[in-house]
Amino acid sequence: MNFTHESLSQKIRFGSGTARDALSEVTAGAARIMLICSPREAERAAEITVDLPVALHHHDVAMHVPVEVADRGRSAAAEARADLLLCFGGGSAIGLAKAVALTTSIPIVAVPTTYSGSEATSMWGMTDNGVKTTGVDPRVAPRAIVYDAELTLGLPAEIGTASGLNALAHSVDAMWGPRADPIDRVLAAESARAVREGLPAIAADASDLTGREQVLYAAYLAATAFSSAGSGLHHKICHVLGGAFDLPHAQTHAAVLPHVLAFNAPAAPEAQARLAGAFGAPTAVEGLAALYDEVRAPRSLRDLGMAEADIAPAVEAVLPLVPAGNPRPVTAADLHRILSAAWSGATPEHI
Amino acid sequence: MNFTHESLSQKIRFGSGTARDALSEVTAGAARIMLICSPREAERAAEITVDLPVALHHHDVAMHVPVEVADRGRSAAAEARADLLLCFGGGSAIGLAKAVALTTSIPIVAVPTTYSGSEATSMWGMTDNGVKTTGVDPRVAPRAIVYDAELTLGLPAEIGTASGLNALAHSVDAMWGPRADPIDRVLAAESARAVREGLPAIAADASDLTGREQVLYAAYLAATAFSSAGSGLHHKICHVLGGAFDLPHAQTHAAVLPHVLAFNAPAAPEAQARLAGAFGAPTAVEGLAALYDEVRAPRSLRDLGMAEADIAPAVEAVLPLVPAGNPRPVTAADLHRILSAAWSGATPEHI
Repeated sequence: MNFTHESLSQKIRFGSGTARDALSEVTAGAARIMLICSPREAERAAEITVDLPVALHHHDVAMHVPVEVADRGRSAAAEARADLLLCFGGGSAIGLAKAVALTTSIPIVAVPTTYSGSEATSMWGMTDNGVKTTGVDPRVAPRAIVYDAELTLGLPAEIGTASGLNALAHSVDAMWGPRADPIDRVLAAESARAVREGLPAIAADASDLTGREQVLYAAYLAATAFSSAGSGLHHKICHVLGGAFDLPHAQTHAAVLPHVLAFNAPAAPEAQARLAGAFGAPTAVEGLAALYDEVRAPRSLRDLGMAEADIAPAVEAVLPLVPAGNPRPVTAADLHRILSAAWSGATPEHI
Repeated sequence: MNFTHESLSQKIRFGSGTARDALSEVTAGAARIMLICSPREAERAAEITVDLPVALHHHDVAMHVPVEVADRGRSAAAEARADLLLCFGGGSAIGLAKAVALTTSIPIVAVPTTYSGSEATSMWGMTDNGVKTTGVDPRVAPRAIVYDAELTLGLPAEIGTASGLNALAHSVDAMWGPRADPIDRVLAAESARAVREGLPAIAADASDLTGREQVLYAAYLAATAFSSAGSGLHHKICHVLGGAFDLPHAQTHAAVLPHVLAFNAPAAPEAQARLAGAFGAPTAVEGLAALYDEVRAPRSLRDLGMAEADIAPAVEAVLPLVPAGNPRPVTAADLHRILSAAWSGATPEHI
């Protein structure tokens, strides 16, 4: 047993319908809050922050945080003399808060409404002319997170399913990421258990709050584990697919995941055992397959718009990125089988 | 699901035989280190810190951190112009480092050689004329912990067993402590699994390093979970017994634990399931019993020096301390049965 594990200083307040009260508690002491959210979320964000000293409502956010958007956010924070960044929403809102915190050291409180998990990490990202820069900095880790599953009710069931499976992909890859440690694997397995419980409940009834709580809780744990463990094979593949072929993020993860799991699990006994246990199934692969059936998961990269001719260049692009510590060696032929199966949506047993 | 969870910012370096290298890494930037350890540990501590800029070797430590010892430590830190406190050893060394950090904000790096788990928490304690004051402060949480199981080889097997069961008591009580949350329960269960694996290995062969790694890892997780969850019934009982009857700390925990578990587990289904799973046994109680057999655990408060006549006053003293959220109500008669069984070392099934 030889590992390094880093934990962040964060306060988590978790409870359905509690966001307004929890925010009063975790923002205590702040006098000039900059509230960051998309225009679409503005009304809901205003409702739960009505008790707070909001000095600025900032709705100028965008996916992947273009540097111009970051610059405007930083100027706005300075003009408003903000002493706290309160971000409400998904990746765009939290991403901008992180970009502002990175240069200003203003603390962040996050209210996530999706399962991206960005709020649980010290990773930031910005794009300049479409080129993404990422980094890790303790200043961008929110000091508090308020999880309120009622705020996810706006997430349509289908997007919620893909987003939940994206969180599950964090957990699966955390089992064998380059810095994966036993603590990561425990948190990842608990996360997988909660996804397995929550996602089918939401698929059966989109208003199921208990299911949404489970998946929100899972998203937090998965991000915690994944940011500690680092990107494994799954995320290397999806990073290439997302960058080169403009495929939808969460759905791409959902389609690829069963095939990476089927490839790696037989060579990763601890991951196999922990995930099988989390899924309540004889093997991790069987447990994931049952979940995919229940939630009618996206399965095929073809359906997401990828051309069969793209498989070969994708294999070329992924091969040099394969993590050295992957549970088993990965050849070009292996990647071709994995990607072909994900492309056609074949059952993963065929790998 | 409604909870608050706080995590600390800490870096964990875990690996047998790696302490010297790990310390160079986690103390980088420090120029004047105050090394805190007991005289007994001085030689070993000097060995693993030979590469570091140690400005002061401080061996003036004592159990429960008397305020005079704390005052002398603070003066010594100031005189040495220490910019880092490096504590090596058990509760006395880390306790003093925390007392110094509390008033000086000097960061701490901890190298634990026992299973007390104090290094994983922001709790501090001091005694003034035998009266203990405790508190919680983020300044006293070590910013880095170096775990090296080779450094526990000096711990005699019998004391190691009791200390490991003391760590297990942290995990069991974390299942139902007043602020227990799902994350605490997951970490506690993983800790229980590692104790179940490690302690019998050490009992069979005191030099078994893999077993010592498991228990050291378990001690960290247990302390993390317990400090988040707060004291449950078990710790309230042991606090009274330790304070009033001067019983040995870890052994007292070992003797009481099976009886609190047998009392609470049937009313705590999640704890029951998680601990049974961790122990690989049909029930938590059976799993613990099997472990106690294998490691020849201390079982009887009588053997530790408690008189039968002390049971009644102990019941009186514990009753008002019973946590409101205990999984089942606790009457004086219940406490009497629990303590009588722990006193005689009866099998816990009789509760």
